[in-house]
Amino acid sequence: MPLPAPPTAYAAGLHILATFAAPAAALRNAAGSQKFFAELVVRLGLTCVGEVYHVFAENAGFTAVLALTESHLSIHTWPEHGLATFDVFLSNFRRDNHATVRRIYQETLGFFAAEERTYAEVLR
Amino acid sequence: MPLPAPPTAYAAGLHILATFAAPAAALRNAAGSQKFFAELVVRLGLTCVGEVYHVFAENAGFTAVLALTESHLSIHTWPEHGLATFDVFLSNFRRDNHATVRRIYQETLGFFAAEERTYAEVLR
Repeated sequence: MPLPAPPTAYAAGLHILATFAAPAAALRNAAGSQKFFAELVVRLGLTCVGEVYHVFAENAGFTAVLALTESHLSIHTWPEHGLATFDVFLSNFRRDNHATVRRIYQETLGFFAAEERTYAEVLR
Repeated sequence: MPLPAPPTAYAAGLHILATFAAPAAALRNAAGSQKFFAELVVRLGLTCVGEVYHVFAENAGFTAVLALTESHLSIHTWPEHGLATFDVFLSNFRRDNHATVRRIYQETLGFFAAEERTYAEVLR
């Protein structure tokens, strides 16, 4: 089947923003996170058009941003505080991605063995 | 003077998320935006550790994410709708960056000759 036509009006996308607690080892695992997010994006049918991973120092946290054709996701980790800030935003250009946004967040919590500390949704 | 010591407790950072209307020409200007954001980041004393710019097609919109040591900013433009989604998040690791977050947003509105459509703040 052909792809559905894009909507004639802008359809707001869901942006989830969270802070979660996780084991320090997971929050230092930039290489493992890179593999996890790369596989997750492909498995969910999204397209990554570029990514940045920056490790601050040995045994320190990392920052990652993935640019997707559907928008982006980012994570910034703080192993010294046992915390990470995470957000994911997908537009609805060709399909409704709300459920995919929620799934990315849940799978991320699982990967990091995380406990949610703050959670917010913004529709925009 | 030496840098102040990092806080012993995690200090939540300010995340601004907005949708704004802007002229289509500005929303197609990936090269100009890249120069604008690069200069803005340096001028405000922030550090970019990597960036992704993706132009969808000739005369189409673009997606950009900048990874900062202080967190990230992103913009996704929709010239066909005359809209962009923008967000910026800075942590407070070494200093309070709330005013800088607001300034980045205001300067971005100015650069794009934009009119705000939605605006949200999340402290996390």
